[in-house]
Amino acid sequence: MKDIQNSVDTRNVAIKKVGIKDLQYPIKVLDRSSFLQPTVANINMYVDLPHNYKGTHMSRFIEILNQYHGKITVDEIGEMLEKMQDHLECETAHLEMSFPYFITKKAPVSEAEGVMDYQCHFDASLTCKKFDLISQVAVPVTMLCPCSKEISEYGAHNQRSTVTVSIRSKELIWFEELIDIVEKHASSPVYSLLKRADEKAVTENAYDNAAFAEDVVRDIAVALNKDKRISWYRVETENMESIHNHNAYAMVESEE
Amino acid sequence: MKDIQNSVDTRNVAIKKVGIKDLQYPIKVLDRSSFLQPTVANINMYVDLPHNYKGTHMSRFIEILNQYHGKITVDEIGEMLEKMQDHLECETAHLEMSFPYFITKKAPVSEAEGVMDYQCHFDASLTCKKFDLISQVAVPVTMLCPCSKEISEYGAHNQRSTVTVSIRSKELIWFEELIDIVEKHASSPVYSLLKRADEKAVTENAYDNAAFAEDVVRDIAVALNKDKRISWYRVETENMESIHNHNAYAMVESEE
Amino acid sequence: MKDIQNSVDTRNVAIKKVGIKDLQYPIKVLDRSSFLQPTVANINMYVDLPHNYKGTHMSRFIEILNQYHGKITVDEIGEMLEKMQDHLECETAHLEMSFPYFITKKAPVSEAEGVMDYQCHFDASLTCKKFDLISQVAVPVTMLCPCSKEISEYGAHNQRSTVTVSIRSKELIWFEELIDIVEKHASSPVYSLLKRADEKAVTENAYDNAAFAEDVVRDIAVALNKDKRISWYRVETENMESIHNHNAYAMVESEE
Amino acid sequence: MKDIQNSVDTRNVAIKKVGIKDLQYPIKVLDRSSFLQPTVANINMYVDLPHNYKGTHMSRFIEILNQYHGKITVDEIGEMLEKMQDHLECETAHLEMSFPYFITKKAPVSEAEGVMDYQCHFDASLTCKKFDLISQVAVPVTMLCPCSKEISEYGAHNQRSTVTVSIRSKELIWFEELIDIVEKHASSPVYSLLKRADEKAVTENAYDNAAFAEDVVRDIAVALNKDKRISWYRVETENMESIHNHNAYAMVESEE
Repeated sequence: MKDIQNSVDTRNVAIKKVGIKDLQYPIKVLDRSSFLQPTVANINMYVDLPHNYKGTHMSRFIEILNQYHGKITVDEIGEMLEKMQDHLECETAHLEMSFPYFITKKAPVSEAEGVMDYQCHFDASLTCKKFDLISQVAVPVTMLCPCSKEISEYGAHNQRSTVTVSIRSKELIWFEELIDIVEKHASSPVYSLLKRADEKAVTENAYDNAAFAEDVVRDIAVALNKDKRISWYRVETENMESIHNHNAYAMVESEE
Repeated sequence: MKDIQNSVDTRNVAIKKVGIKDLQYPIKVLDRSSFLQPTVANINMYVDLPHNYKGTHMSRFIEILNQYHGKITVDEIGEMLEKMQDHLECETAHLEMSFPYFITKKAPVSEAEGVMDYQCHFDASLTCKKFDLISQVAVPVTMLCPCSKEISEYGAHNQRSTVTVSIRSKELIWFEELIDIVEKHASSPVYSLLKRADEKAVTENAYDNAAFAEDVVRDIAVALNKDKRISWYRVETENMESIHNHNAYAMVESEE
Repeated sequence: MKDIQNSVDTRNVAIKKVGIKDLQYPIKVLDRSSFLQPTVANINMYVDLPHNYKGTHMSRFIEILNQYHGKITVDEIGEMLEKMQDHLECETAHLEMSFPYFITKKAPVSEAEGVMDYQCHFDASLTCKKFDLISQVAVPVTMLCPCSKEISEYGAHNQRSTVTVSIRSKELIWFEELIDIVEKHASSPVYSLLKRADEKAVTENAYDNAAFAEDVVRDIAVALNKDKRISWYRVETENMESIHNHNAYAMVESEE
Repeated sequence: MKDIQNSVDTRNVAIKKVGIKDLQYPIKVLDRSSFLQPTVANINMYVDLPHNYKGTHMSRFIEILNQYHGKITVDEIGEMLEKMQDHLECETAHLEMSFPYFITKKAPVSEAEGVMDYQCHFDASLTCKKFDLISQVAVPVTMLCPCSKEISEYGAHNQRSTVTVSIRSKELIWFEELIDIVEKHASSPVYSLLKRADEKAVTENAYDNAAFAEDVVRDIAVALNKDKRISWYRVETENMESIHNHNAYAMVESEE
């Protein structure tokens, strides 16, 4: 059968990314307690295509993925990108994976255990021999407004917020480490299971640690600045304001 | 050209709903201040199909819709359903429209005006001569937890919640009327624009009106029970808990 | 600490459902090859609340869920609902779980293996001693339009469609069984991995099996009617029409 | 009342973006037939914040937006950004708006009129006096696979695809112009209303114009390269493959 994709192309337009998008796939992720955690990823895989090739071979992306069925972890990402370069004859290969990651967390007073979910993301690429990896984790937290607290005789509006930290690093940094930094600088961590004594502690803790969207991203930036393993970061927060039907947003980024 | 859809079907399976789904369309909605408000709807249109017909004619749904281009309001829904019955030879015709609806609302102290959006929905059907219409509005509000307030020395967790009211009524009830009822029974209404004096008022008001998810749906049910125009209702709330990464939900429904 | 939720309520409004919604949780699902497949569910848990109780205890839902951490399968659902009745003193308990389910599937000619994802859903309830379970699976397929094929000199528009089957049954029916029925009656199954010989087979197979949205739901209904284990079903399809920016929809439901 | 946001900050972390996100707002958009089309936008507004300021004033974003209530068009964007610079004392102001845009389009043979929706987006910023505007439109089209056509004896898989064009330009370019370019280079445009004669034409036209994801983005790039008004572009396509449950993706970008 004719392989049209292999024809010569004369339009002189190089393609920056071509591949497969929005594929659901079971993966395993190594957590800090050295347990291989099963989860489900949404996966994108792209390569570049020189101007003189007509098309890429979409089935090869899936074939490479299938070779790692049941054993995809962060350790395999570099190898998978190399295989993409080999089998798809590209200069740059991209692999993106988004997945929920679960951590068992103790409530602050009762120490009752609950399972918390954090949405994580890897954005990896290999250009010739140059490997690049951005790791990202989205951490749900409580944020309590310092302005509302200051001007009101009692109470203060607070809300669930999502703080998203993206990093490039010189060595492995666990999602757990980034989550710890975020939860430490928010008004309060959130939990899946809280007994009454815990709810009291979380409520008062949030009130004691009022912080603007601007504050939480800055405090996390200061913490990340001190970590010499981190070469680049972006910190964002999106607060689902309890007094509005729109969100508050703040973002800081390190110099590159 | 052959009209396959008109062939006879012998499988003896009547189709309950067939039609078009997820169509974006500009519409106008009459608001209480008698202004025809332009907005954008997501539209579904279905008919039933007797067991002996092979297929419906999808283009006729669009033709009927286009006859009302630029002038769809709730008043036209009955007429549109009749046209669907006529042109698609069905017993039951269904029309569903979801759209954002905007109301200019004054902040509680400064009286500064802001524009609030409420997601609305019509679910209409005509079976032979029997017309049925469910009107729905989703109202974002602040909910403040009575348990957290009671057990904590200061503060109380609160969050944005969405209270959704669906009704069948004997005469027209404005979305504004339903929104008023919901905002009155929540811990506080939310606003798009709040100056500092307003934020103080909203914060203290929410603290003074702590209510569980269970409370807000019950209080709204009590109010709706008193309105003799309403023949059926469902009231739901979903609270985006500021201390959890999951939501709290409560629902009441009138007897039919 | 005071337990406000336990107070007496005098509003005389019974709550139909109250609980937790939109919780991400790792679960395991037994597949037909008797492998316990790890996946991630979105979970809702509700109970009813008699008119004289003020509130439910949200943390108890999570406590019950946590007792099944790492071992939730369909077999545990009945037991979980009983625990909800016990610990939350309700008449009716509801448990809903949505999750992707993966099946390794061979391409039709090359027999190359690929992993396909199917979105599944359980909607279970226990009212006093009466257990009810709806199982649902959404199957992506190719649908090719018979009208387009008939009237065109060559080609025929086709598209990805999602056929969703929901059933109540007297004994266990595997998701694999429902998927087989759907894929048999669509224009063609879809696959994650197709080599060129497979793509030819799928293309020609779809062209040979043109079917309207109405046809696929009817043919599946006929097949389900013959299965005496099934006591109720609903079959829906949503075709992402390649020639429109809206979808075609059809639904049949068995008599109850 | 104390203005905490105005306090001095000593953490030495400048904030790149802070503001409001995910606000629904009614706007008007000028179309090529010089009609001011009402639609609904999802709006984000951000400013930067120097390292020595503690917080921004979120209500001022809404106040600026409200000054343009009922009359926001692309012409006002520059002025709105200037007001953001003035009232929020920032160096850079950002304004993002996403909205559906409607065009009445004639079917290819019957010339029956239907209303098509296109999702549009403005991403505007003002840094000191430097104005930047990216205009984007997402165009749904039919794409028919050349490989499937070549290797199959009859038929060819095709699907709805979304081609998204983003541009920077030296003068105004209408969304209609970009849509025309995309629809010309896809296998076929899509329509909301097609009579049988039109469906035949669209089916055969798509078959005659088979194109890979790679082809459509390249052909559009070649067309955009010739337009001297355009200083930068990105062209993406996402094909909802009818034979897979994942999408095909391709992207080209001009050199900056």
